[in-house]
Amino acid sequence: MGNYIFGVDIGGTTIKLGLFRTDEELLEKWEIPTRTMDGGTYVLPDAVNSIRRTMKKYEVTKSQVEGIGIGVPGPVDEKGIVHGCVNLGWGKFDIREHMGDLFPEVSNVCAGNDATIATLGELWFGGGRGYGSAAMFTLGTGVGGGIAMGGKIFRGFHGGAGEWGHIVMNPYEKDVCNCGKRGCLEQYSSATGIVRIAGHMLKEDEKPSELRNQEKLTAKIICDLAKEGDELAQKALEQCSDYLGRAMSYVACAVDPEIFLIGGGMSRAGAVLLDSIRRSYEKYAFHASMETPIKCARLGNDAGIYGCFKMVCLKG
Amino acid sequence: MGNYIFGVDIGGTTIKLGLFRTDEELLEKWEIPTRTMDGGTYVLPDAVNSIRRTMKKYEVTKSQVEGIGIGVPGPVDEKGIVHGCVNLGWGKFDIREHMGDLFPEVSNVCAGNDATIATLGELWFGGGRGYGSAAMFTLGTGVGGGIAMGGKIFRGFHGGAGEWGHIVMNPYEKDVCNCGKRGCLEQYSSATGIVRIAGHMLKEDEKPSELRNQEKLTAKIICDLAKEGDELAQKALEQCSDYLGRAMSYVACAVDPEIFLIGGGMSRAGAVLLDSIRRSYEKYAFHASMETPIKCARLGNDAGIYGCFKMVCLKG
Repeated sequence: MGNYIFGVDIGGTTIKLGLFRTDEELLEKWEIPTRTMDGGTYVLPDAVNSIRRTMKKYEVTKSQVEGIGIGVPGPVDEKGIVHGCVNLGWGKFDIREHMGDLFPEVSNVCAGNDATIATLGELWFGGGRGYGSAAMFTLGTGVGGGIAMGGKIFRGFHGGAGEWGHIVMNPYEKDVCNCGKRGCLEQYSSATGIVRIAGHMLKEDEKPSELRNQEKLTAKIICDLAKEGDELAQKALEQCSDYLGRAMSYVACAVDPEIFLIGGGMSRAGAVLLDSIRRSYEKYAFHASMETPIKCARLGNDAGIYGCFKMVCLKG
Repeated sequence: MGNYIFGVDIGGTTIKLGLFRTDEELLEKWEIPTRTMDGGTYVLPDAVNSIRRTMKKYEVTKSQVEGIGIGVPGPVDEKGIVHGCVNLGWGKFDIREHMGDLFPEVSNVCAGNDATIATLGELWFGGGRGYGSAAMFTLGTGVGGGIAMGGKIFRGFHGGAGEWGHIVMNPYEKDVCNCGKRGCLEQYSSATGIVRIAGHMLKEDEKPSELRNQEKLTAKIICDLAKEGDELAQKALEQCSDYLGRAMSYVACAVDPEIFLIGGGMSRAGAVLLDSIRRSYEKYAFHASMETPIKCARLGNDAGIYGCFKMVCLKG
């Protein structure tokens, strides 16, 4: 067994890397840009070169590397087959085989979906510490998510488990989602979604609101004003949470996790958001899972590399 | 290791029992009535007495019994704690401990939710044979269901995994569900649900339909008439399937099973129902799991005892 593990969390803009000792200590974390041109062919070689440079810097030999964990922004199945990553220009391929060509010195490569791996990171080192299973909802520009069960990542057959952003919450929605469908969760319960909701409300409602005095509406402004008692902001937040709480009740009926985690930029709103989600969740949840705790994620952008580390420790 | 396994599938009206050899052969199956009076205190003693009689008949000694698998109509968590069964009058208790008092000769008792166990039975011996994971929707008076993953039953933390009947599909529904909420899946996609839908359609629509000439509407009549081309019957079936296919897309986003199974009395409608569910599912599903097969369950009322048998073989 080696003494070092690399975590590689590949995003559409940057690749986040981490060098861990197998005793869980993070020695260094850093970022490199994601070069997505030419069908994303540079992405993995860039990551491998960066790892090689770090190995030199820390005088880590190839036999000291226990393994590399990789998170990719798309579905990855149990055999390590990536089923396309739109943001990277990647199609379907075997990521472990490809890493074997690029980096033959290290044979132990594990890969998974980035949001699922972040959930694993949060379960072991963040907001889910002490729990055995978690379902995470990451509220950013869109809604990402993942599941960790029995302390391990839970992929599903096609790597599609935890893909809540595009569950159709409202088939009667008029606006079209980025995915082409209508009424997806991320049209309501993301940073973009709550701004869209507030925009509609401002048009339809003539109530005075501080929201009208903003140059540009953001999720943060809406949550802050809701906290201060602005009625329209509260209504927008409530609608956003109503969809999210209902989606969480679906997830509870399906996987019944021990805890729910809320991550992503929007989770910084804290109690005002969590309380509102809780009210909605209890309105819809099945009695067996009515009391499942809902907490904030804690590791922010580091959840991915921590999850990559743990995935290698657990061998998948 | 013993040579015999008993399966005990406890329903609200009858207890179905099966005696299996550990080589998978079902030697005998039989039923006894479920006596639910006095808080359901007779249910387990009745099952144990019936097992004892069968042991005598087959000259099976206690050391030859590998174990007993029990399916109960309510949530059961990983530790074997039953979290209440309304139909039996049961509250919360440790079913393995209680069986230990009733039947000290046999120490290996496994228990789980009946619908989850039926899913395990179908995965190994029925419609899901050859697949590694399945999510089953059982369309009867209500909507039951379960998940089997990696060849084993999947309970969730509180035993609530696979409880799709009460996921809220339509928060704007006017009619109240048995559970007290509004817009639950089983208000639309059960044998009772499709009759309710057809009833509303007959009131709201003046089109001629054979449905109007029926003394009493049943799910079977509606599916048969849909197959024969009756427009209103087709519309009712389509709405029933639309809700079901959408709920299945939620389950795919959460657990991403290798196959979906449709069981229960309504599944006898066969192709006309499956085709209609398929169309709806593809309308809502996330691309990664768009092609997940949807098939009919095959074991009917025996799925439970087969699942109990397999649960004992797998030790949980």
